Amino acid sequence: MIKIGLLGFGNVGQGVLDILKKNARHITERVGDEIQIEKILVRDINKYSGLIQDTAQLTTHPEDIISNAEIDIVVEMMGGEFPAYDYICDALKNRKHVVTANKEVISRHKETLFKLAKEHSVDIYFEAAVGGGIPIIRSLKVGLAANKIKKIYGILNGTTNYILTKIEEEKATFEEVLQKAQSLGFAEADPTMDVEGIDVAHKLVILTAVAFKSKVQLEDLYVEGITNVSLTDIMYAKELGFTIKLLAIGELLSNDSLSLKVHPTLIPSGHFLSSVKNEFNAAYIVGNAVGEVLLAGKGAGGSPTGSAVVSDIIDIAFDLTGALNRRNLEAHLVERPRQSLNESESGFYLRLLLDDKPHMMETVTKIMSDADINIKKLLQKESINDKAEVVILTNTIKENHIQNVSQNLQQTKGVSLESMIRVDHLNAF
Amino acid sequence: MIKIGLLGFGNVGQGVLDILKKNARHITERVGDEIQIEKILVRDINKYSGLIQDTAQLTTHPEDIISNAEIDIVVEMMGGEFPAYDYICDALKNRKHVVTANKEVISRHKETLFKLAKEHSVDIYFEAAVGGGIPIIRSLKVGLAANKIKKIYGILNGTTNYILTKIEEEKATFEEVLQKAQSLGFAEADPTMDVEGIDVAHKLVILTAVAFKSKVQLEDLYVEGITNVSLTDIMYAKELGFTIKLLAIGELLSNDSLSLKVHPTLIPSGHFLSSVKNEFNAAYIVGNAVGEVLLAGKGAGGSPTGSAVVSDIIDIAFDLTGALNRRNLEAHLVERPRQSLNESESGFYLRLLLDDKPHMMETVTKIMSDADINIKKLLQKESINDKAEVVILTNTIKENHIQNVSQNLQQTKGVSLESMIRVDHLNAF
Repeated sequence: MIKIGLLGFGNVGQGVLDILKKNARHITERVGDEIQIEKILVRDINKYSGLIQDTAQLTTHPEDIISNAEIDIVVEMMGGEFPAYDYICDALKNRKHVVTANKEVISRHKETLFKLAKEHSVDIYFEAAVGGGIPIIRSLKVGLAANKIKKIYGILNGTTNYILTKIEEEKATFEEVLQKAQSLGFAEADPTMDVEGIDVAHKLVILTAVAFKSKVQLEDLYVEGITNVSLTDIMYAKELGFTIKLLAIGELLSNDSLSLKVHPTLIPSGHFLSSVKNEFNAAYIVGNAVGEVLLAGKGAGGSPTGSAVVSDIIDIAFDLTGALNRRNLEAHLVERPRQSLNESESGFYLRLLLDDKPHMMETVTKIMSDADINIKKLLQKESINDKAEVVILTNTIKENHIQNVSQNLQQTKGVSLESMIRVDHLNAF
Repeated sequence: MIKIGLLGFGNVGQGVLDILKKNARHITERVGDEIQIEKILVRDINKYSGLIQDTAQLTTHPEDIISNAEIDIVVEMMGGEFPAYDYICDALKNRKHVVTANKEVISRHKETLFKLAKEHSVDIYFEAAVGGGIPIIRSLKVGLAANKIKKIYGILNGTTNYILTKIEEEKATFEEVLQKAQSLGFAEADPTMDVEGIDVAHKLVILTAVAFKSKVQLEDLYVEGITNVSLTDIMYAKELGFTIKLLAIGELLSNDSLSLKVHPTLIPSGHFLSSVKNEFNAAYIVGNAVGEVLLAGKGAGGSPTGSAVVSDIIDIAFDLTGALNRRNLEAHLVERPRQSLNESESGFYLRLLLDDKPHMMETVTKIMSDADINIKKLLQKESINDKAEVVILTNTIKENHIQNVSQNLQQTKGVSLESMIRVDHLNAF
């Protein structure tokens, strides 16, 4: 049994509890041991008692967690520099592993904290501090470890990326979109940290430590926010083939010095980063072996951030239970039933050649509607050589459904089924 | 000293040697120990002796590596099912950790190999087998470990993605593009494995094991290649707002059964996956905590694939040298010089309001050219209220350069500098 204590029970803390609950079996299988929440630090027990079955888990005394001999891993999700920093220091000194989502504490105190962790032979993990659920830190530390990292471009603040996206999409002003974002809960009542680029700057300081092994502080960076980016500029940029994004840019120059900047940037609209929209975050990393890598996903929210926190907990748990559990987890392969292709669902793209005669189209659409298939889109082109080319996009249906239709079409005189390709109406990323 | 033996010295093997050499200091610092190539298995020593300083490293006898007591990690990069599979089995039985880039061997023999590794308390890593340098396997195993994975969409074959991209871009036929790809070395002389989807299917089998912990074989999948995808269909799809990609689709359905398919698919052109072009690969993963995550990068080539192989070696080395070296690598933070903003380079977007009088434009362009700044693009709009709005995009210049220009412009009568935003002409991803 691996026991954890949570400092803080807001959005992320509740996300962590939720994930540990709903994926309990899955996580226990992976880790080879159970992960259990022993204590949760809250300000007011009454306020949170409805969220948890066993209210004895709740405490208002930090030492119930930090000095609790039962607890292996302390998970800090309070936010803010103090007292979070002090609690983390004390936890490390008490030889507890620490997982934190606190960008400010890591950005400002990384040297001290890493040193403390090393001295006391414990870990401090902070994947959730940058890019929410996207495994950016871990990819830099392990997955891309072979590389000397040359450059990182980050879209690391969901609020500002949402604002910039919506200004363009809705042709609204910064103020209008900010207000809307605030009313939807995508922006804070005081949005200064986000819109002035401070939040992104903290994250760039952390990435600089991990990717370039460099000590820098927020004050070493050039930081410019998005408050001066106007609808006019965004529309002109678009006309010129560019999109404006608030980028964190870290670069290891050829003379081994660093360039570290946070500012609004015009980037070519064809570039991958320009398709990172709304509240999504991304890191675009250039390594001297791998070339370009892009990692993207949701950068905030209780569940995505909770995913990073719980994955950090699991990584520590792997080591607590013996490293081979981590590596050989594929040894637990199971048999699962498989859906037959016939039962599988897709939309379908059909291209037909029809004899240029009356009622041909009617015949085709009747075959479709008799099989209960909706036509979502239809293109008919001018006839060439007495043949009309028709393209049909269907709604999502079962494969066996379309196989009948395809047979019927092929058996109909004057109809030739030229292509049939599956369609996936993925939600826009 | 951690000693490795390479089985195979083709494109990837040479990439691995190259990375270990050029990033030697960086890797030694991270691992806390040196990684040294002890032996390399080749077919013909004379053929490869020019590629390596110490030809005593080369051998034609596999047992010089597999049974070598000095060697900690065996790195298999021969490709093909046999004899690679036998060598890997023997290496594991001899308690050597194994890193392999061999998708076919992992796809076909994963159960046996994972079992062997577990029995002999060693690791088998295979990040390079799927998606080249992109850390997909490791993200599924660790970075997203908190999640129950619901769905994976993969663009996992560079050759077919290149062909589909070029058919659309160059309005050429499948055959024309295939020939060109073959002449450029992007497609094999016999492209069957790629264009028929077999290569992708092997990779989906591997992802199914890692993401869904499920035993499946290639024969369990529905597999359809791209040979029937025509220019006509690609252009119609585009007209309808879709892009055609060869997708690997793995889905854990609500009844816990699996749907596993490889086929050409129309996906909405606005979706992130549709911007994965040419030889790039990507995995789009949906987890029940993190939501959507996209990982993209180069899926083939000696250096990107070498990046994955060497990162796997480093991950094993972390464990060989003690886990805390892996985690606390940030404890080695160093001071680096930082480039001042003045020395930093960007393109610039300038928006100006000019009095609607003769020679105003001339005045502006003279200020630019006197400062040796090239105008890359210029937009001038119709005057409103006696003011002309002008937008200028410059080439890439130093910051101190533009600061002078900006001062000059602001001091010029009849000129008002409304906005100045940096531009990064990122190479299209």
